[in-house]
Amino acid sequence: MAESADPGPQREAVIELLAVISYGEISAFERLAEDAALAPSLADKVALATMASSEFGKVAPLHDRIRALGGEPYAAIAPFREAVDEFHRHTAPADWYESLVKAYVGDRLAGDFYREIASVLDGETRDLVIGTVEKSAQAAFIVGRVRSAIEQDPTLGGRLALWARRLMGEALTQAQHVAAEHEALAELVAGPGFDVARLAEMFSLLTEQHRSRMAELGLEP
Amino acid sequence: MAESADPGPQREAVIELLAVISYGEISAFERLAEDAALAPSLADKVALATMASSEFGKVAPLHDRIRALGGEPYAAIAPFREAVDEFHRHTAPADWYESLVKAYVGDRLAGDFYREIASVLDGETRDLVIGTVEKSAQAAFIVGRVRSAIEQDPTLGGRLALWARRLMGEALTQAQHVAAEHEALAELVAGPGFDVARLAEMFSLLTEQHRSRMAELGLEP
Repeated sequence: MAESADPGPQREAVIELLAVISYGEISAFERLAEDAALAPSLADKVALATMASSEFGKVAPLHDRIRALGGEPYAAIAPFREAVDEFHRHTAPADWYESLVKAYVGDRLAGDFYREIASVLDGETRDLVIGTVEKSAQAAFIVGRVRSAIEQDPTLGGRLALWARRLMGEALTQAQHVAAEHEALAELVAGPGFDVARLAEMFSLLTEQHRSRMAELGLEP
Repeated sequence: MAESADPGPQREAVIELLAVISYGEISAFERLAEDAALAPSLADKVALATMASSEFGKVAPLHDRIRALGGEPYAAIAPFREAVDEFHRHTAPADWYESLVKAYVGDRLAGDFYREIASVLDGETRDLVIGTVEKSAQAAFIVGRVRSAIEQDPTLGGRLALWARRLMGEALTQAQHVAAEHEALAELVAGPGFDVARLAEMFSLLTEQHRSRMAELGLEP
């Protein structure tokens, strides 16, 4: 572990990656907490608040790692706030079911991304990033809620399928902005030699996994 | 532990107590998350969101205990929502510093109350309730923020002192409503024999501890 405890020349890029992930978690907390306020029942509220708290619990270890690598978390986050905030501005849920789908899709998409980038990270950072991925009981709750709502109102399925596609489209748009503006980070994520094909491959893999998520929710991919 | 694992004849009252505590934590999460959205900086936001998540983390174990005692958490919570919601309706912070003071005072008051009632609880419930009391790093952060703001603007100190008194007054008002409407719960909290003097004593002890909290924040008690 001693050898892998320092990411070496990629240090700055790793700090950027941890910063953008941590701001993603902070803003996920904020949006989920906002959406929880509109829950139709206390049990629904608790399900979304549990997801919000669980996202937020990942922030402190990420910030600790940024500090261990010599960075300052809030300074490191600053350049990434606009892209993440922009994503949320363009994907404000119009109702409770859009909130549920966004919570589920966002959680899963983040998990897929973490697993994808794990291979390019030093051991300690990898353990940290992968450690944030967990199958939560709330996800099963959400899938059940969405599926039964669609059964009762098939037109809802069409609307939510469009919504899920829009979520993925906005996520890719913002990811591409971030990659274009942060070359070292893009190189880190694309792997050794900055293989553009590798980036494109990752995006299409994430899109493929997103399709299977939609199917889980009972949505036409 | 086997003997103390069941509260016996007090079972219904213990379920009520766990229910009102858990709804207190759920609504603390909601208010703190709301207030975090108005934070003047990302570090401030993270401090309040950390408190929100930490409050919320106590909910699942409380609900598990309610189920272990044969209760259903959401049904058990229902009779207590009005009093807790009413407290928050009457104590909506007007600005960021009122949010900070409310977060600090609320967290500490809850902790004092849990310690006070511990002695009347069965062992397993006691461990659970006391286990939710922790001195968080965020509390120190809040104290520092409030004290330095008052140093820069002494009129703020006067306003926040009134605010802290109002928080305590509203908390006592709602606690008395709950006690009046839930006799078994009041008996549990008041200890064996339903000693009204004991209840009054607890309220004045909590008020005393609240005064020392105000001093910590740099407020005139």
